[in-house]
Order: sequence, then structure tokens, then C-alpha cells
Amino acid sequence: MIRSEETICAPATAIGGAIAVIRVSGSHSINICDKIFIPLDKSTKLIDQKGFTIVFGDICFGDEIIDEVLVSVFRAPHSYTGENSVEISCHASVYIIKRILKMLIESGAVAARPGEFTQRAFLNGRIDLSQAEAVADVIASTSSSAHRLAMNQMRGGFSSEISKLRSELLNFASLIELELDFGEEDVEFADRNELKTIILNVKDLADRMAMSFLLGNVVKNGIPVVIVGKPNTGKSTLLNALLMDEKAIVSEIPGTTRDTIEDTIVIDGIEYRFIDTAGLRETSDIIESLGIKKTHEKINQASVILLVDEISDQAESVNESADALREIIAGSVKQLFLLINKIDQASPVRQLEVQEQIRLLPGETLLFISAKEKTGLDDLRKRLGEVIAKEKLNTDDVIITNIRHYESLMNVSESLDRVLSGLHNNIPEDFIAIDIRQAIHYLGEITGEITSDEILGNIFKNFCIGK
Amino acid sequence: MIRSEETICAPATAIGGAIAVIRVSGSHSINICDKIFIPLDKSTKLIDQKGFTIVFGDICFGDEIIDEVLVSVFRAPHSYTGENSVEISCHASVYIIKRILKMLIESGAVAARPGEFTQRAFLNGRIDLSQAEAVADVIASTSSSAHRLAMNQMRGGFSSEISKLRSELLNFASLIELELDFGEEDVEFADRNELKTIILNVKDLADRMAMSFLLGNVVKNGIPVVIVGKPNTGKSTLLNALLMDEKAIVSEIPGTTRDTIEDTIVIDGIEYRFIDTAGLRETSDIIESLGIKKTHEKINQASVILLVDEISDQAESVNESADALREIIAGSVKQLFLLINKIDQASPVRQLEVQEQIRLLPGETLLFISAKEKTGLDDLRKRLGEVIAKEKLNTDDVIITNIRHYESLMNVSESLDRVLSGLHNNIPEDFIAIDIRQAIHYLGEITGEITSDEILGNIFKNFCIGK
Repeated sequence: MIRSEETICAPATAIGGAIAVIRVSGSHSINICDKIFIPLDKSTKLIDQKGFTIVFGDICFGDEIIDEVLVSVFRAPHSYTGENSVEISCHASVYIIKRILKMLIESGAVAARPGEFTQRAFLNGRIDLSQAEAVADVIASTSSSAHRLAMNQMRGGFSSEISKLRSELLNFASLIELELDFGEEDVEFADRNELKTIILNVKDLADRMAMSFLLGNVVKNGIPVVIVGKPNTGKSTLLNALLMDEKAIVSEIPGTTRDTIEDTIVIDGIEYRFIDTAGLRETSDIIESLGIKKTHEKINQASVILLVDEISDQAESVNESADALREIIAGSVKQLFLLINKIDQASPVRQLEVQEQIRLLPGETLLFISAKEKTGLDDLRKRLGEVIAKEKLNTDDVIITNIRHYESLMNVSESLDRVLSGLHNNIPEDFIAIDIRQAIHYLGEITGEITSDEILGNIFKNFCIGK
Repeated sequence: MIRSEETICAPATAIGGAIAVIRVSGSHSINICDKIFIPLDKSTKLIDQKGFTIVFGDICFGDEIIDEVLVSVFRAPHSYTGENSVEISCHASVYIIKRILKMLIESGAVAARPGEFTQRAFLNGRIDLSQAEAVADVIASTSSSAHRLAMNQMRGGFSSEISKLRSELLNFASLIELELDFGEEDVEFADRNELKTIILNVKDLADRMAMSFLLGNVVKNGIPVVIVGKPNTGKSTLLNALLMDEKAIVSEIPGTTRDTIEDTIVIDGIEYRFIDTAGLRETSDIIESLGIKKTHEKINQASVILLVDEISDQAESVNESADALREIIAGSVKQLFLLINKIDQASPVRQLEVQEQIRLLPGETLLFISAKEKTGLDDLRKRLGEVIAKEKLNTDDVIITNIRHYESLMNVSESLDRVLSGLHNNIPEDFIAIDIRQAIHYLGEITGEITSDEILGNIFKNFCIGK
């Protein structure tokens, strides 16, 4: 449900900190704020202010001063939403924020829904839909690569690629439809072979974009890593050792706190996400064997598996663990790391002995480490960093990170397959035209030329309030 | 340690939300931001901007776009700190905030310490010390009365009262010191009785302010309430019933979450803080009796005690519980509420019977409730609301909320006592002058005319970063 007539308001900052920002947007936003705001210079009014200016003064409820605030004024169309907008910068007190929102609502504004500011930016043509989606990704990005992909998408890099595809298809569709207009006369405006080449090119590009989702998804959400192994092999010590440096770096940044939902580390701008480490984080090593169902699930979710054994284990037992694991992951694309831990407790000779006896399949990695002494961890980090083929990230190719775009691109590809087979079988132009129009429709879904309340609802419901 | 030469930077908003604000302050703040910011209109520079204006553009690290931001420019002395200042409004991504702070620091800024922006506002004479302290109180205030006291203090209401006292004492001191200059001649410039009256008036005012701390403290920190009673009398049901309406109200406000550290309710703008309810919040009622040491501690911290019994209890047993409690609180000023719960399980006749048999001391309150059916809770709220004498809050008298101010005022009062006894005993003027100067010194401590690095350090260390 779209309600562009209303003026919306919401806190745009999180609870806590020193200052808070309340956003107001809509044609009446400046008037509404004038009702509750008294500038220091009482002769001025917000409504007389130019855009991109700030006024200092008080939010007042009758005689009661609610807060001293800075009010920023933006005038349509030069604002985030494209509408008249006001940002009230107040003290970050929940009490004050509540009072100001209440006064705004009593003065004619309504509480904004999640993502409604960005939704308005889209509806007012400031940004397209894939750019709007990228706003949420920009906010959520926690590694440089995820940030770069989201920023590129927010600034329209992806949209311009889609536009290219779309305009090629539109040309093609026009020609075919022109032929239909002359239906009786059996003319061919477009050389069929040439058209086929164009469709093949477009489909190839759409396919490559769709396929980039695999990479884009791990960049956006982090590469899932699981640590498995027999009890007391030092799995939790390893996890803590890997995380420790990371935490030290994070805590150096003033004002940031790390509420760990998941344990993550960032190597070379890529995030590695340790799955289900709750058990490992307990003080005592949780008993788990490779046979347990839960471990199977963890392994299935992971792209990288760190199998931890210890140097004192019989090499044959290590080989057996590895074989059991290989059986579980057979047929999937997962990276297996065999980590032989506790090398501080053995001689170099023992290490050579184990190395000789362990069977390794192509693509697997064997490393000798001491989690306790932090030996070999740099090497482990380096090899983890090589898991993802970074050269792909550094090309100018667009990499998609959004499953909605992936699905649309797959639909585009399917429609184009039908076009190709139509051309091949010389089926009537009107059927071909339908399939091309279908492909154009799916491309339009990505950027929002084609949209529905349902699609919009799904996209913006995951936004935070105030964005 | 004061370092006013440096340009400081810090995030001013909490982690989370849609947007974040990074504050930069110091003489080089605008230059430093110009190094990392490219305005949309590349021909402009921040350094050429007027104060109270906003520029849209990109934060860039070489070719890499870190974020699209709004930059607000403030020029000395018209800023919060009184220095050149910049506020960067960026997307609320921890990654982006970290990158921008890092770039600011690499461009010459330093990370701000807690409260350093407000400390600079004080050092640059924008606000006095008691106003600076009130900034933290404004942010922390969670009820209308606490907010009102803090806002009044932040806007200098308290400071102007202190100034009045101070100027009266300064007049007095000058006269006395004038007499000292003519020491040999034994003149009296000031009538001793008149002076005594002035000192008495000033001391009376200082005493009343100091005494207002009791009220100010509960307004600021909430009135501590404890719920006690035998197991299974329905204490946790009562707590949940009292909190439920409150939580419903809070969750209506968009964008607010309530991370409950303590359970609180607000009645008529005053906060009631339930002490140590962890036990009560468990699903099962925790066994506790009035004899337990922990319960004694809870009772000692509380201003209001809710003793819960049930209607089926023998009235004599209720009287015994109450007596035990009265013994614990003997000699202290605490409000005792006897709550007879589970009245839904008894007849009105039984209620009358119990009412007759229960002994009540003056000032105590007896209420019949059903926590489960929410009967009698409105009455309980109303009576809780009467615990504090609200008429005192509604006078124009200054109410102090800060223990540092309380201590200074007590010191003022003591010094003035010595002045009075000096006047009474006709001791030499120079001793009297010393005591007056001492009183002036203590008043100066409150507003910061007299200060030390230690006092400043103690005050600002409790601020958040970015304020």
C-alpha cells in the first residue's frame, strides 16, 4: 500500500550513543516541524529556509522544552526521498525521541514503516529498485568486498548493465513486432542469424551474471566455515586463536562494540563465518563425532571444512576421519583442510612421519599447527584466503548478491532459451515476441520498471525503520 | 590532560539503525574533511562553505567510494564545541564508520575521548560545568520529571541560582576585605547584623538546595521498589502485571527496543525501579523468606516495599510478616505496602475479615489485589504515584540531582557555619574572609570556575564517546 500523500517520521539512528536523528519526509514535513520547533532566532521559520541548511533551536511542547536540536532542511526534489524532508538531530535519549515522534505524529505526520524512506526514493524515481535494495546491503556489509559490491549496486553499476541487456532486447522486440505489423506481407526486417547472435550474447551475459551469484552470495554473507574433529583435539583453542587478533583490531575502533551473533574473521576483505560455534565456545570441548546428525548438518552448510586431529593420533586414524568426511561431502564443492594440531607436543621427526602417512586428495590442504602456541595460523589464514578466487572479484564484471536478482536472471535466461528454440524452429513471430517481452519483463523486475505491491512489500519489510 | 590543539573525531550515534553521524571538531576539522570528501559539485570545497550548511557527496579513499554522505559544516564559535566542527552523516554500517574514522585519523584527526566534545564546549566557555554534566543526564533521562530537571540544569537554571549565591558572597567578602585593608583603623564597613542576615539567607538557600538532592536523586535514578513475600504468593505475577502495560506502551513507539537491565515503570512522570527482580522473573517463584540476608539487602536499597501475602493466609501470619519487615526497616524512611493477593480465590466476606484483623501502622498502605486478574492494580499504581510529594517538583525551586553538587553545597554550608560562628564570636576579619572565600570556592566548583584535571576527568569519563 503506497501512501505518498502522508508525511512520515521515524528515528533513523539506533538507540544509544550521544545524538539521535529523527527523519521526517513528505510534502508537509517542513510545515509540521515548524509547529514544534522554535529557532534560536525566533524571527526565522523553517519554511523560509533554503535546502541544505541547518537551524539551531528548541523543540517545545507549550512552555516545556523537550530538547535543544539542530534541524536540517531539504527541499524537493533535492533530498533522499525526493520530497521535502527534515532531519532533527537531538540528544540520544529514548524519552526525548519518543516525545518528539509523538509531537510530530500529533502535528500531522505518521510513523514510517520499515524502509519507507527508501521506498519513496524509489517511487519518486531517485533510485531504481536494485539500488534501493543495495542500500540495505551497504548498511549490513561487514567486509570490504561485500561493501564494494553493495556500493557499486547502490550507485547504479548493476542497473546500467541490466539497462544494456534490456535495450538490446527492446530493439530486437521492436523489429520482430514491426514484422508482425506487416504480417500479411511476410517481410523480415531482421536477419534471423544476426538476431540469434544478439540473443545468444544477451543470454550469455545474463547467465554469467546469474552465475556470479554464487560468488556474490559468499562475499555478501561470508564464507561458511565449520570446525570438526574428535573431542579434545583443540578445536575451541583454534577458534579462539583465529578470532583473537580480529577482536583486538575491532576493539581498537572507538565507539564500536561487537555483539557477536556469529564468529567471523575477515581475511583480505572477505568474511569467513564460523558456523555453529556455540558448542566450541564452551569452556570444555564438547563431545562430538563425525557420526552425529548435527555435525552432518553443519558440514552441509559449510563451504570450508577444517578437520582437526592431533599429532599424537595414529596417521591411519586421521585418514579414517578424513575418509568419513569425504564420504559426507562427496559430490559437493567444499574445501577440505586437514589440520594436525598440537605440534608443540611432538618432534619434527614425528611431523615428517605423519606427513608421509597421510593420504591427501587433489585440492585438499594439509597443515601442521599448534593452536595453543599459535604456530602455523598465519599459513592457515593465507590458505583460507585463497579459497575464493579473488581475481574474479577484481574484474569489472558485475557480481550479483541478491537472490531475487538471481531468480529474475534465471527467468530471463529461460525465456531467451525459448526465443532461441523458436528461431531455430521457425515458429511464428508473435510467439517469439511474447518470449522476448517476457525476458524484458523479468529484467524490468530487477530494476523496478515492472513491480507489484507484493514485490515492494517483500523488499522493504527487511529494511530497518528510518531507512 | 587537555589537548585543545588537536582535531578530534568520534561516532556520535549508536551502532545500528539506518544512518550514523561522525563528529569532527577542532581548528583543522574542515580541512581534514576536505581531504577525504568529494562534493557532488566538484568545484566546491567544505572550507568555502558557510556555517550551518550541508553538502552532499562521497567519502573517497583514492578511487574507492566508501560512502555517499551528507556533511554539515559549523564554524567557530557557532558550534557545539565552540570550534570549527563537521558532522558526517553516513550509512549506519560498522564497516563504513570504521573506514571513515580511520581515514580521518590518517588525515590528522585523533580519536575523541569520552565526553571530549562536551568538555571542549566547557573549556571554550560555551557552557559551565554543571550544564556539561546535565548533558549526560538529559541523554540518560527516562521519565518526564528526570528529563525536566536535567533540561533545566543543561539550560543553566541551576547555574544562575549558584551565581546569585556567589555574587552575594562576593559582595560580602569585598566588604570584609576592605575592612582588612584599613586594618589599623578599626573601621566597620558592613553592619555585622546585616551581614549575619545575608549569610543566614545564603546558607538557608544552599541548605535547601542540598536537601533537594534527596528528591532529585530519586527523580533522576527512579524510586527503588522491592517486592518481598513468602514463596508462591504471586510476586512474579504481580511484577509482570505491573510491567505489561508499560511494555505495551514502549513497543508502540517505532524503532525502540527495550533491553531491560532493570524493570521499571513510569507513573505520572516518575520512574519506579524494581530492584533485583531477576529471581522474580524466573518461571517459578523463587523460594525466599524475610530472614534471608539477600532480602535484607534488597529491602535496605528500597524506598518502597511491597509485601505480598495471600488472602488465604491467616491474618496473624500476615501481621507477623509485616512485623518482621517493620523490624528490618525500623528507623529508616521507607513506604510499606501490604498487598493481599489472590482475592479472586476468596469471598468478599473473607476480605472484610482479613481487613479487620490486619494491624496497620500510620503511613502504611493495605491493598487487596488479584495480580492474576489484574484487580486492584490501578489503585496500587495510584498509591505508588503518591509516594513522592509531587508538589515539591512543581515549585520553581531548583532541585539538584548530582552528588558532586550535593557535596559542594554541603561544604558551602559548613564554611558559612564557620563564618556565622566567627561573626558571633567576633573573631578577626581575616579568618572570616578565609571562610567566605572557601564557600565561594565550593560554589565555583559546581559551575567550574574552580576546577582541576581530576574533577574534569571524573566528570567526563562517564560520558559516552561522541558526546
